Amino acid sequence: MPAKNAFYAQSGGVTAVINATACGLIETARKHKNRIGKVYAGRDGIIGALTEDLIDTSKESAAAIRALRHTPAGAFGSCRYKLKGLEENRAQYERLIEVFKAHNIGYFFYNGGNDSADTAYKVSQISGTLGYPVVCVGVPKTVDNDLAVTDCCPGFGSVAKFVATSMREAGFDVASMARTSTKVFVLEVMGRHACWITAACGLAAEAAGDAPHILLFPEIVFDQEKFLARVDATVKRYGYCAIGVSEGIHGADGKFLSESGLKDAFGHAQLGGVAPQIANLVKDKLGYKYHWAVADYLQRAARHIASKTDVEQAYAVGKAAVELALKGRNAVMPVIVRKSDKPYRWSVEAADLKDIANKEKKMPRNFITADGFHITEKCRKYLAPLTYGEDYPPYKNGLPSYIKLKNVAVKKKLAASFKI
Amino acid sequence: MPAKNAFYAQSGGVTAVINATACGLIETARKHKNRIGKVYAGRDGIIGALTEDLIDTSKESAAAIRALRHTPAGAFGSCRYKLKGLEENRAQYERLIEVFKAHNIGYFFYNGGNDSADTAYKVSQISGTLGYPVVCVGVPKTVDNDLAVTDCCPGFGSVAKFVATSMREAGFDVASMARTSTKVFVLEVMGRHACWITAACGLAAEAAGDAPHILLFPEIVFDQEKFLARVDATVKRYGYCAIGVSEGIHGADGKFLSESGLKDAFGHAQLGGVAPQIANLVKDKLGYKYHWAVADYLQRAARHIASKTDVEQAYAVGKAAVELALKGRNAVMPVIVRKSDKPYRWSVEAADLKDIANKEKKMPRNFITADGFHITEKCRKYLAPLTYGEDYPPYKNGLPSYIKLKNVAVKKKLAASFKI
Repeated sequence: MPAKNAFYAQSGGVTAVINATACGLIETARKHKNRIGKVYAGRDGIIGALTEDLIDTSKESAAAIRALRHTPAGAFGSCRYKLKGLEENRAQYERLIEVFKAHNIGYFFYNGGNDSADTAYKVSQISGTLGYPVVCVGVPKTVDNDLAVTDCCPGFGSVAKFVATSMREAGFDVASMARTSTKVFVLEVMGRHACWITAACGLAAEAAGDAPHILLFPEIVFDQEKFLARVDATVKRYGYCAIGVSEGIHGADGKFLSESGLKDAFGHAQLGGVAPQIANLVKDKLGYKYHWAVADYLQRAARHIASKTDVEQAYAVGKAAVELALKGRNAVMPVIVRKSDKPYRWSVEAADLKDIANKEKKMPRNFITADGFHITEKCRKYLAPLTYGEDYPPYKNGLPSYIKLKNVAVKKKLAASFKI
Repeated sequence: MPAKNAFYAQSGGVTAVINATACGLIETARKHKNRIGKVYAGRDGIIGALTEDLIDTSKESAAAIRALRHTPAGAFGSCRYKLKGLEENRAQYERLIEVFKAHNIGYFFYNGGNDSADTAYKVSQISGTLGYPVVCVGVPKTVDNDLAVTDCCPGFGSVAKFVATSMREAGFDVASMARTSTKVFVLEVMGRHACWITAACGLAAEAAGDAPHILLFPEIVFDQEKFLARVDATVKRYGYCAIGVSEGIHGADGKFLSESGLKDAFGHAQLGGVAPQIANLVKDKLGYKYHWAVADYLQRAARHIASKTDVEQAYAVGKAAVELALKGRNAVMPVIVRKSDKPYRWSVEAADLKDIANKEKKMPRNFITADGFHITEKCRKYLAPLTYGEDYPPYKNGLPSYIKLKNVAVKKKLAASFKI
């Protein structure tokens, strides 16, 4: 079989290690030039495929591709753009296949979350019926850690390391000044429905009295009275109170506390700003001096403190995606399988995309303490290994040195353009 | 002369490296046991001296003291408590001297900013007239970088490294998704009056188009029209716009924007934080999708990404403080003197406290570009070396391993208590 080209796209919110996956994928593909010709990347994700705006990764040096391993965010651009259902918009899928055919693309690697797993699955199904079979492999990525089947999701471990470290550091800060200054500190982290990132803040607390003292999860209905009583008791006992809060917490009415009225491309409410609300509530009802922080993109882009485990897993799923494709495995995703907690051991295996597509892995209730305000030992045992190890980027002039690729466009071959 | 004990106190907002100063000071004192008996630390800063709540640092192992070098925040507690003028409250000074006398303290090391330099100066003056001469040495510390005489202030270089790194990382994130997602990102950093930290964000931009595209300084009156025009032009040119903003920016009326009572789209009052205000302004007037982050304590506690230069300088001023005291130098402060920009070379020399007390070093206007929206090459040349080098803390179970001291109290000797 003559070599076919491959198409790789990054999808949805980027992470500190999604480029490490790109690195693993491209480096592995380059070792199999007899089977895989060029790796094309979609400029701005799947939009690049639909608009025939492909990037020729073969124009990048080996050093540039290697540097992807330590560079955060999406080197080829990502997008929030969900393909509709086959019945609703068959034209999108036909266009994809048309572009793949025009560029002799026989492999489709889609690096994203559950939506992207669904898209990759649909493309795998339709490509055959359209007479141009493409091997479709999903590649896991999401800071939300909510993909089904896989033990964890590349991208999450590094966020976990950042938020736990930040919580510990801010906790030390507040503790040392609480007598005359801030008594309540609130750190807001990402997480709409699944509270994995909020839970990761909890790793900072290893002994009684350590920050954080309270975690507010989206899965637990926010009970103002109970919360305020806990804050007050904590300040009285330890002199201060550090709180980790998910942007997605909501009251008994089911409404997000922070709902801003804006919606993103998927129709999800745009959140942000619950930390100041919580802080003001504390000030208003208890009178304590407060400070608050909103980590926002800082948490998911913090490659400078990436988890080595996360980087290795991100690279490994990229590598495995190519190896699976070369074995002709279609409609699968390489996933992380946990072999042991202590010592932490893991491997990469293949799972069917249809078991992952559109599913959301919730955090088990027994990962949250009975009172709803912290994580259990079971949760800690699961989370901690994902933060193990450091993998520092190189520095230049005092700052991390990240790569910007040339991103040379592939010459278009189709006459028709496509409206997004 | 028989050995006298020393008193050391941390003052004001803590930093990622103030404990490195404590480490340098205590390690150096331990090498001169014939001259300096014990180093006592004030629990919660100067309050510890006034209330005779002293910590016996000799109870800490050499390993524990060594670990201070990589531990953020104030290991003995700090406070925001300014001693009044001598005329206003002579009793405070008399009490200090009384406590010093009771515990045979002959050296006073005060680790803080311009207020603390003033206090140390006053104590140096009054201790003689009260018949109990104490050698008083100020030790510089402030993330605001606003101390006079010294070229830079320990604590600032690490904040600079954190905010510049975070801005670069968030910038990569936003750039990679701007086509379909966030187009404007706002990072709020500390700085009420002096804009050194905001300026440090600017280090992230090394080439045209790099984040940050706009910096909003407290020294430059916020001009809404000019700002919005610049945001719009930046998004149109580069696809996105990253903004670094000081918490202290203000309008022509001199009022902080964060106090201006702006309301969100629904008429709700904004809950503090200038970043959400700026972001909402952009959304309201230009319609761009936004995200914002407020770094708050994360920036000044971020020991995990401390500047090696900063750690070395922090340690060096602690060491020099003891050496100056042993030379009998009274009412001085060890300061950083810059010997050369390229290669960056510095030394520690002594300056008179009276030249530092209560002064504030402003950023020169020629460090800000003519349009008021960025830093100049001159500024970059000054700032960059302060971020040079990495000095990673040890990690345990995936997180930085910071020391908590035993902080054993010294037995009280005075009958009278003192009300703060």
